[in-house]
Amino acid sequence: MTKIKAAIVGYGNIGHYALEAVLAADDFELVGIVRRNTQDIPAELASYKVVDDIEKLGKVDVALLCSPTRAIGPLAAKILALGINTVDSFDVHSDIVALKRSLDDVAKQHNSVAVVSAGWDPGSDSIMRTLMLAMAPKGVTYTNFGPGMSMGHSVAAKAIDGVKDALSVTIPLGTGVHRRMVYIELDAGAKFDDVAQAIKADSYFASDETHIRQVDSIDALKDVGHGVHMTHKGVSGATHNQLFEYSMRINNPALTSQFMVSAARASMKQAAGAYTVIEIPPVNFLQGDLDTLIAKLV
Amino acid sequence: MTKIKAAIVGYGNIGHYALEAVLAADDFELVGIVRRNTQDIPAELASYKVVDDIEKLGKVDVALLCSPTRAIGPLAAKILALGINTVDSFDVHSDIVALKRSLDDVAKQHNSVAVVSAGWDPGSDSIMRTLMLAMAPKGVTYTNFGPGMSMGHSVAAKAIDGVKDALSVTIPLGTGVHRRMVYIELDAGAKFDDVAQAIKADSYFASDETHIRQVDSIDALKDVGHGVHMTHKGVSGATHNQLFEYSMRINNPALTSQFMVSAARASMKQAAGAYTVIEIPPVNFLQGDLDTLIAKLV
Repeated sequence: MTKIKAAIVGYGNIGHYALEAVLAADDFELVGIVRRNTQDIPAELASYKVVDDIEKLGKVDVALLCSPTRAIGPLAAKILALGINTVDSFDVHSDIVALKRSLDDVAKQHNSVAVVSAGWDPGSDSIMRTLMLAMAPKGVTYTNFGPGMSMGHSVAAKAIDGVKDALSVTIPLGTGVHRRMVYIELDAGAKFDDVAQAIKADSYFASDETHIRQVDSIDALKDVGHGVHMTHKGVSGATHNQLFEYSMRINNPALTSQFMVSAARASMKQAAGAYTVIEIPPVNFLQGDLDTLIAKLV
Repeated sequence: MTKIKAAIVGYGNIGHYALEAVLAADDFELVGIVRRNTQDIPAELASYKVVDDIEKLGKVDVALLCSPTRAIGPLAAKILALGINTVDSFDVHSDIVALKRSLDDVAKQHNSVAVVSAGWDPGSDSIMRTLMLAMAPKGVTYTNFGPGMSMGHSVAAKAIDGVKDALSVTIPLGTGVHRRMVYIELDAGAKFDDVAQAIKADSYFASDETHIRQVDSIDALKDVGHGVHMTHKGVSGATHNQLFEYSMRINNPALTSQFMVSAARASMKQAAGAYTVIEIPPVNFLQGDLDTLIAKLV
């Protein structure tokens, strides 16, 4: 079997878990890691090629983009233009259509495939929402997040003047309403009340119930577990009160990077262009012979 | 907008709900109903064309096959050969690969599309199982059915000598193990103990915990509500204990026929051939503009 040649681009939290997910997949071969810093290399990368430019890796089929969301657009375009597929977990929901459109042009020009927003939300949750509507087209779907650490909210709180470190935990209150529990370490001299007020006024927190707690150590609280509880109550045909529920309790970066690897596999079976995960046949995410998978899963 | 011209083939329980689901879908137009008996027509069909041969309906894009599972193979092949797409809810799991293969040949020859086994299990549950493996490729998935009436088991019990009418309810005991509660009306002169023994020995019941109860009226117990509770505990990359759960409480024929209508819509976007639902992009099941759906669901 010819293995899928994968590169990991960016080696932060997601990159670290992506390495584990690529190594766990029999049908993948890790070609190398691309990162800015090629001098100061973590011990677990000692046996892999670490370069600062993907073109130094030779033949690559697909790049797992483990860089911050804001860097994804230009980075994906550059790699797609080399004829290499890309997968990302771009997570700004309102910008996904535009990202997909811009990458679609590049990918089609250079015969490559981009799978955008292939984490868990957007990502696997998006497929779940789609499926629930296919089963009951009318009705309301609620996606409830947590309890778990929100990266975006933690970064926003940390950016407030007087905050040394911060951790924002998302608490689901049902029907898509969330409470934010924000834990902060203060800078010397900062006043808790002023900082707490500034956090509550920030656009990330202003519309949610937000509680601020001062702690001695943020590091002591960090836990990358997360969860989702999705509900859909709707109408199939003319029949009301059809009830659907989905929930998960997961290690967040582990699920994100695993789903990216599954999407990388799927990218090998799509025609040139850019795709969100709801545009890809689900079985393409899995390893194995089609008829065997159908016999096992359908 | 050009509407999808649908025909309903077979007008039993599923056909009745399929009529409601087609009428509820803005992008569909009901061309007519195909059934053996065109004389004795139910009141709700008075305003529709009822024929005994699909060729009498003029142009049809897709046929919803609402006939018994055993009739699906030859029926689908005949209709696909007319260049008409088909959707069925064929439910013998072990024969799906063979059915798909035989219909694939016919469909490709006649430029039509078959979507096979597009109910809820096989069907929407199959997509859920696939997605769970994409998120955590290692680990065990359990599909627990019920509580709810099993059509197959009810028919099997009814076929036993001495049984006038029967209803078999599936009770989930967890980890994919089920109890069968079988309610029976006896024929005059039949002995309960003999009948109960024969039911328990039948291959449908022999491997499950089975309880038989004699009742005066099966009709008084009939309720087409059903349910599923699916769990997956597995490994994403190298991270164990990733937990996923899916459950639904639904009207069984309403969900089956709605998912068939969603699959009929999807059939219009596939290349000629036969597909199981895990081979189709989920967004194809939904009505609406692609970018709008992506913006809403991804």
